Amino acid sequence: MNSLWDRYQKYLVRDSQLGLSVDISRMSFGDDFFPTMEPRAQAALAAMKTLEAGAIANPDEQRMVGHYWLRSPALAPTPELRTEIEDCLALTGEFAQRVQDSGRFTDALVIGIGGSALGPQFLSDALGTEDDRLRLHFFDNTDPDGMDRVLATLQHRFEHTLVVVISKSGGTPETRNGMLEAEAAYARAGIDFAARAVAVTGVASQLDRYAEAKGWLARFPMWDWVGGRTSILSAVGLVPLRLQGLDMDAVLAGAATMDAWTRTTETLRNPAMVLALMWYCAGEGRGAKDMVVLPYKDRLVLFSKYLQQLVMESIGKELDLEGKKVNQGLAVYGNKGSTDQHAYVQQLRDGVNNFFATFIEVRKGRAGDSLEVEPGATCADFLQGFLRGTRTALHESGRSSVTVSVPEVSPAIVGALVALYERAVGFYASLVNVNAYHQPGVEAGKKAAAAILKLQASVRGALATTPQTAPQIAATLSAEPEAVYHALVHLAANDARVQATTGTTPGEDTFATLAAT
Amino acid sequence: MNSLWDRYQKYLVRDSQLGLSVDISRMSFGDDFFPTMEPRAQAALAAMKTLEAGAIANPDEQRMVGHYWLRSPALAPTPELRTEIEDCLALTGEFAQRVQDSGRFTDALVIGIGGSALGPQFLSDALGTEDDRLRLHFFDNTDPDGMDRVLATLQHRFEHTLVVVISKSGGTPETRNGMLEAEAAYARAGIDFAARAVAVTGVASQLDRYAEAKGWLARFPMWDWVGGRTSILSAVGLVPLRLQGLDMDAVLAGAATMDAWTRTTETLRNPAMVLALMWYCAGEGRGAKDMVVLPYKDRLVLFSKYLQQLVMESIGKELDLEGKKVNQGLAVYGNKGSTDQHAYVQQLRDGVNNFFATFIEVRKGRAGDSLEVEPGATCADFLQGFLRGTRTALHESGRSSVTVSVPEVSPAIVGALVALYERAVGFYASLVNVNAYHQPGVEAGKKAAAAILKLQASVRGALATTPQTAPQIAATLSAEPEAVYHALVHLAANDARVQATTGTTPGEDTFATLAAT
Repeated sequence: MNSLWDRYQKYLVRDSQLGLSVDISRMSFGDDFFPTMEPRAQAALAAMKTLEAGAIANPDEQRMVGHYWLRSPALAPTPELRTEIEDCLALTGEFAQRVQDSGRFTDALVIGIGGSALGPQFLSDALGTEDDRLRLHFFDNTDPDGMDRVLATLQHRFEHTLVVVISKSGGTPETRNGMLEAEAAYARAGIDFAARAVAVTGVASQLDRYAEAKGWLARFPMWDWVGGRTSILSAVGLVPLRLQGLDMDAVLAGAATMDAWTRTTETLRNPAMVLALMWYCAGEGRGAKDMVVLPYKDRLVLFSKYLQQLVMESIGKELDLEGKKVNQGLAVYGNKGSTDQHAYVQQLRDGVNNFFATFIEVRKGRAGDSLEVEPGATCADFLQGFLRGTRTALHESGRSSVTVSVPEVSPAIVGALVALYERAVGFYASLVNVNAYHQPGVEAGKKAAAAILKLQASVRGALATTPQTAPQIAATLSAEPEAVYHALVHLAANDARVQATTGTTPGEDTFATLAAT
Repeated sequence: MNSLWDRYQKYLVRDSQLGLSVDISRMSFGDDFFPTMEPRAQAALAAMKTLEAGAIANPDEQRMVGHYWLRSPALAPTPELRTEIEDCLALTGEFAQRVQDSGRFTDALVIGIGGSALGPQFLSDALGTEDDRLRLHFFDNTDPDGMDRVLATLQHRFEHTLVVVISKSGGTPETRNGMLEAEAAYARAGIDFAARAVAVTGVASQLDRYAEAKGWLARFPMWDWVGGRTSILSAVGLVPLRLQGLDMDAVLAGAATMDAWTRTTETLRNPAMVLALMWYCAGEGRGAKDMVVLPYKDRLVLFSKYLQQLVMESIGKELDLEGKKVNQGLAVYGNKGSTDQHAYVQQLRDGVNNFFATFIEVRKGRAGDSLEVEPGATCADFLQGFLRGTRTALHESGRSSVTVSVPEVSPAIVGALVALYERAVGFYASLVNVNAYHQPGVEAGKKAAAAILKLQASVRGALATTPQTAPQIAATLSAEPEAVYHALVHLAANDARVQATTGTTPGEDTFATLAAT
């Protein structure tokens, strides 16, 4: 067993400033792995250096990639960018202070999706307390029932509820829809929406112009050199989380500390590079194994989901940087331990070995003293025991794991974790030669959705008081019968004037509008 | 394109009573797939029939598997079991009514983990409204900070907060720990805990005896023939969800309707069998592809997590029913659409093709009228458009998907979805010849955790005012240095009397207790 202890010590990457360590001793790699990978690791480090210096690191969109400058504005490639970042830091802080000092607001409704929601949700939950200055709520979808639920909890407090609308392009339909629904709800309640509305968006975007025209309370910028999934330390996160009262300066400082650490070119002392290499090792550089993320701490439950977005949207690409079809990816899932031990660790230990685990260990159990739930043992001791026990059990059955240990869930540590994984994703993308900073595949679904909305309007127009089948209407419209059929079923479910009669097969179902009365 | 419409109609499984359909037209199987699988499908149906009749369907634990009787007590194999189920249905209803009529309670803290938490969490979130009779809160882990957060939100309402402790064995440490923490918090606040505490547990379990001795408000039974992950329609779900005010009778009725439907032996008309066969087809009967679950409805976001537990803990097994090593499994992940389109649909469409998707479509958008967010289009139209658009985009890039459509998120439909997937899991386990109803792999982690807790006590005893390294203490205790090291770091993080000094390597870190003053 001493060889495991030796391996643990040999490969441990740790830092006394943050108290964070990355333990790869339970990953399955041989002594030649790191030497073999060293040239590619150095190439990835060099690519990252170029990126940080302001190169067009996102070639498809011809954009710089600047999220690292957000916490070290002095590293921005031009004085103008540096000033923009510093102004944003100052202005978001002043705005939050002014709102809090006014005493007028108790809540904020944040409207965004993807990178414009998940980052703020993660930090809000990880660092929030009962003493928060404002309580955050989210619209993160275009589900009208979901919005109704959130509005129902806020309905008597609209007067004291800010609305923060976050959309880089300003044209994301889910976010635009949520904004219009919130605006309508405020109007119904007779509350001035514009006086409570804040936009976080690209300068001169559709949303920016709308907010300006309506005289919204405030507007903050987003930049094309910050991608949605790495925007948490831009105004996207700064505005809502400073309003909540979180110490975002400490989050930024923690990220900056991690950035400095992960710039080291000594592979085995660079925790982000070590993580990237472990992903490569586990999945043979082609995503052959899923990454299961298990933070043993309730506050970090959304970190798993945050990493799911960060990793999968960055790495899941059809083409490599040379345009070769590679269908890369790295599937990520997980919630939290020890809860997930009662959900699917059964499969992890005994079942299909198609994953590697990432344990996130938080050393500190709680603030204050603890009850002994058994002689000499607290809840925190059990939590630690379950993590270590599961790591051992997985290792014994030949399952690999990485363990990231942090002292506590503080603003600095959360910032450091974000920065650690942002850079690991960038390194890994270099190792497998894909562009981590675009998302071309998202467009196909959007285009198909737009076509479906267009078709729905035609289908509605083709309905008559005489019952018709989907194939009949499809023939009229020269459209696909299945798409027409689903449009009809959807209309019948959501419009009392459209009536459906079920036939033997979907093709025999009939649809009609009620006769005008 | 007409061939897709024909395929859609040919393989659609639908039912007019529930309005639920299962569409497998975008799965990749040939015309010979169903005929080839028919003998195994019939064997699985026969095994299920035997199970429902009261056979020992969980051979390792020598138990019957009776969750289907919970919603059709007349099917229970003995009159005694039928009476027990009917009594539980009646008593949970009467208890909830009494609590609500008393007007004394506003909240309930539910303490459980795994099957004793996730089912209630899912239904509570799927069906809850602002008009709920009681608001539910959960301890679902042994994280003391997580408990502190929940207690902080309740601290001024302990007097009006019931505590429902759910543990089948009565010995699950996470749940026991949570119960003790809650009891201590009530004691600190001077509120009588026993008068507000309810146990849901096996008769004469450790918890049952504790609750009896302390004179708790009420106790409800759990049975060894209901597994945790299929216990949602036993007292596990009935007690908290009836307290919340949900129409659990309608949930039970929906499940019973689905049970009746999924007993059909006509394979292509049995939606549970069709799902099980699709899982088999996609993953080649060995979990070769992950199942990504995408409900396009905020209320169903926990359904993905519920299925993750139900499927993975049931299917992820080392041995088949003959004891042969098979390492079966089926990895499940997902959150909700269209939100996840902005997180990882990029990878699903363009990246590694290691999954099949399950879309859950809810036809009805919301209660009441809808705003048009664009001319002729509502939020619900967009949601439907994104689902259909993503399904199309995935199909175009050769990715498979199943679509389950339901008219709305009602109690009956949620009950039907639970029953549909419970039976699909049972069928799939038969197809791949594993026991779906035990979880032997969970024990290894628990045993390892117990050993770690024991070691921690020894390590604490070995600490002295003279600084020592982990290898030194390990030598004293004849223990593994790495396990000792982590125990030491954990103690230093959680006990102010234990001091750590960082060395060059972990083996050189030293630990000491403060001298007595």
